Amino acid sequence: MHTEQSKQNPDHLKQLYEALEHGSPQEVINLLDTMHPSAIANALKTLPRDLRPDLWQLVATPSKGEVLLETQGEVRQQLIAVTDEQVLLAVLAILEIDELADLDADLPVSVVNAMVGAMDTERRQRYETVRFYPDDTAGGLMDVDAAAVRMDVSLKAVLRYLRKLRKQKGALPEHLDSLMVVDRNNQYLGILRLSDVVSLGAKTTVSETMTAGVPPISVLTPAAKVARLFEDQDLISAPVVSQTGRLLGRITIDDVVDVMRDEAEQEMMRRAGLSKTTDMFGPIIPSAGRRAIWLGVNLINAFIAASVIGLFEDSIDKIVTLAILMPVVASMGGVAGSQTLTLVTRGLALEQITHSNAWRLLLRELALGLLNGFLWAFVVAIIAFLWFNSAQLGIVFGIALALNLLTGALAGTLIPLILQRLGIDPALAGGVILISATDVIGFLSFLGLATIFLL
Amino acid sequence: MHTEQSKQNPDHLKQLYEALEHGSPQEVINLLDTMHPSAIANALKTLPRDLRPDLWQLVATPSKGEVLLETQGEVRQQLIAVTDEQVLLAVLAILEIDELADLDADLPVSVVNAMVGAMDTERRQRYETVRFYPDDTAGGLMDVDAAAVRMDVSLKAVLRYLRKLRKQKGALPEHLDSLMVVDRNNQYLGILRLSDVVSLGAKTTVSETMTAGVPPISVLTPAAKVARLFEDQDLISAPVVSQTGRLLGRITIDDVVDVMRDEAEQEMMRRAGLSKTTDMFGPIIPSAGRRAIWLGVNLINAFIAASVIGLFEDSIDKIVTLAILMPVVASMGGVAGSQTLTLVTRGLALEQITHSNAWRLLLRELALGLLNGFLWAFVVAIIAFLWFNSAQLGIVFGIALALNLLTGALAGTLIPLILQRLGIDPALAGGVILISATDVIGFLSFLGLATIFLL
Repeated sequence: MHTEQSKQNPDHLKQLYEALEHGSPQEVINLLDTMHPSAIANALKTLPRDLRPDLWQLVATPSKGEVLLETQGEVRQQLIAVTDEQVLLAVLAILEIDELADLDADLPVSVVNAMVGAMDTERRQRYETVRFYPDDTAGGLMDVDAAAVRMDVSLKAVLRYLRKLRKQKGALPEHLDSLMVVDRNNQYLGILRLSDVVSLGAKTTVSETMTAGVPPISVLTPAAKVARLFEDQDLISAPVVSQTGRLLGRITIDDVVDVMRDEAEQEMMRRAGLSKTTDMFGPIIPSAGRRAIWLGVNLINAFIAASVIGLFEDSIDKIVTLAILMPVVASMGGVAGSQTLTLVTRGLALEQITHSNAWRLLLRELALGLLNGFLWAFVVAIIAFLWFNSAQLGIVFGIALALNLLTGALAGTLIPLILQRLGIDPALAGGVILISATDVIGFLSFLGLATIFLL
Repeated sequence: MHTEQSKQNPDHLKQLYEALEHGSPQEVINLLDTMHPSAIANALKTLPRDLRPDLWQLVATPSKGEVLLETQGEVRQQLIAVTDEQVLLAVLAILEIDELADLDADLPVSVVNAMVGAMDTERRQRYETVRFYPDDTAGGLMDVDAAAVRMDVSLKAVLRYLRKLRKQKGALPEHLDSLMVVDRNNQYLGILRLSDVVSLGAKTTVSETMTAGVPPISVLTPAAKVARLFEDQDLISAPVVSQTGRLLGRITIDDVVDVMRDEAEQEMMRRAGLSKTTDMFGPIIPSAGRRAIWLGVNLINAFIAASVIGLFEDSIDKIVTLAILMPVVASMGGVAGSQTLTLVTRGLALEQITHSNAWRLLLRELALGLLNGFLWAFVVAIIAFLWFNSAQLGIVFGIALALNLLTGALAGTLIPLILQRLGIDPALAGGVILISATDVIGFLSFLGLATIFLL
């Protein structure tokens, strides 16, 4: 009877902090023993940088690898940097090949060399196969451990093969829900589900039982596309083949879930000009530098908008009320534009926007902008009239606001479409460019109309 | 040999549009036959509303259920509304119980009643079990089809049981990678992996083979928490138990992947005041109404900021340059604050921020704000000096900008912490409140300092 320790308890974190501060190392070790590696990784991330080595040192060597896999970027690099090279090699020796491929970019070259040197021929070959493909492709995600069988054997022979495999290696590959079926030349033919193996007679042959037509994934398919295939087709595992159809390995859903999580997180962080690997407690100076770049980009935008206001210095000098109302016009255009931008960016990511419907989408967004433009133009015109007792000012304010809502709809639709055409990720740059557009047009339309009609 | 049709080809969409416009219905049907239900759902979403019924009508009845499952909200409701009730009942009759539970909130009551009326006793009981739990809990996600075995039987008996089950039902439950082990009272004891069943001798007993200690998920666990457990522990399936430990069902990763995707999408959409179920081509008036609400919330914010400017009308009247520079101060504070807000909101969602480290986080963010405050205060002071030839104006501008970057750091840290304490999702309301804070403090500090030192 195997026993897995994988209770995850939110109280663990609190207990752990207390044990670290007031308890003995043994208390901490006992607590760590009851925690899943992902919970330990989480605890390390929440610790201030200077306290992490103390906790890390107490994590059992066999768990260290799993914990490293659950960290990223700065946190992972810090943990690796404070680990003795011999311990690190022992940790790496027990990881799976696809896990190594995920870690090795963060390892010192000397450790990678020593690790490869200590591998047996088979492991080294498999490692080199996976290393050959970029991390963000099917090849980088796959496990080369795929158990494959021929089409002409019986299920009885399959069972015999699996028992032998288990004896030889000590265990079967993780998350084994199906075997790959190949021909004599290792060409991929289909999959054999374990649930079919266990529920059909032992004399049935593989060719009668196998599921053909499960499309294999080409080894150079981008990781994001792999994730979408898994999501859309509810896959648990999928074969990976070379361009000539030769079976190279297998991708399992746990790796894909990591890709999905990383993608969602990355998108959120990138919108704020942060990187996904940002350590909440990373060293201050490099963090400040990275944020400074984003602030600099936005400063340029802000000064462009300011220079538009500068054009109308005389008008503001004559009617100071314009200065009070102009940020309202700019900000409402930005909000309306962000709604459209979010919708269009999502549509592009899900491949729901094509040549054929982009025009219709633009017209619909403009219609929405027009409707809300009328509504809010009316509302703000009344407010401005009541506040400053000038009907003319109210009308100019309302018209400028409606124009800027339309600008938001137009910019929110066109900016992501153009960025994608240029090969730039709309999720990254779209927001900054949009705000620049709605600020400039917002100030220009309001101050311009006021200069024409109110002076 | 089963054959699955699941090629997904980006060219399909283009071909489909052409066939719809110029081809015969048979051409469209042939094309649909080669498409995975998720691809058909995607095609329906990208079609303008008035063309959807034409395509939907040509989708084969057995595929209609899968397609409906891949749609949400307005699109799904439209498709259901244009489907004949008899066809709908035929579609529903072949879906799994957990799939029905996902759809039924969008079905007319008359259809749900007719559907339940047509079920046999076993299916009805299972349906009612799942219906009993809210959609966004483990109970709502689970499949009650879990195949369970006793601890004291041999693997040979397990194989016999599975063959019998398959004969009775025609197929085993989807994504079956493990069986549940229970005692006489249906209390959950552990899992039996199929990969162990196929690779160990037939005389081994379940108790020797099973994996104990895989923690079951309690039936009322929120769906988001279930997703996190699957991610963190690399699960493929997990047992669901009642509060007394009785086995109720099984959650498989494909359902969890849907939860993960929905969550990521929902978060992105909510930040722009949109709902995840928004139809890109939905009817204009209700769409405009929903967006109007968000614009209204932001208008209130914008007028609060405007009223702060209004307090300094006299100062702007005397130094009109203030009106040119004040949006720069406000916008930079907003950008800096958004960076902090994103980091803290993520940390809260991942449960990486606790009582013990919240203070340290706040201090670190303030330190970052201070560093970038110094840097950019210096830069903008120089720019303002060169532009308007006034050292005093440059100094006031720089100080106000630094103060607002600090405000951004403070608000970006405290707002999500406070919102979470109040039980409000920081991802939803955080951005709006933050911008309000940085706008108000930005205008107040710049115009206030200018009034004191420049007039």
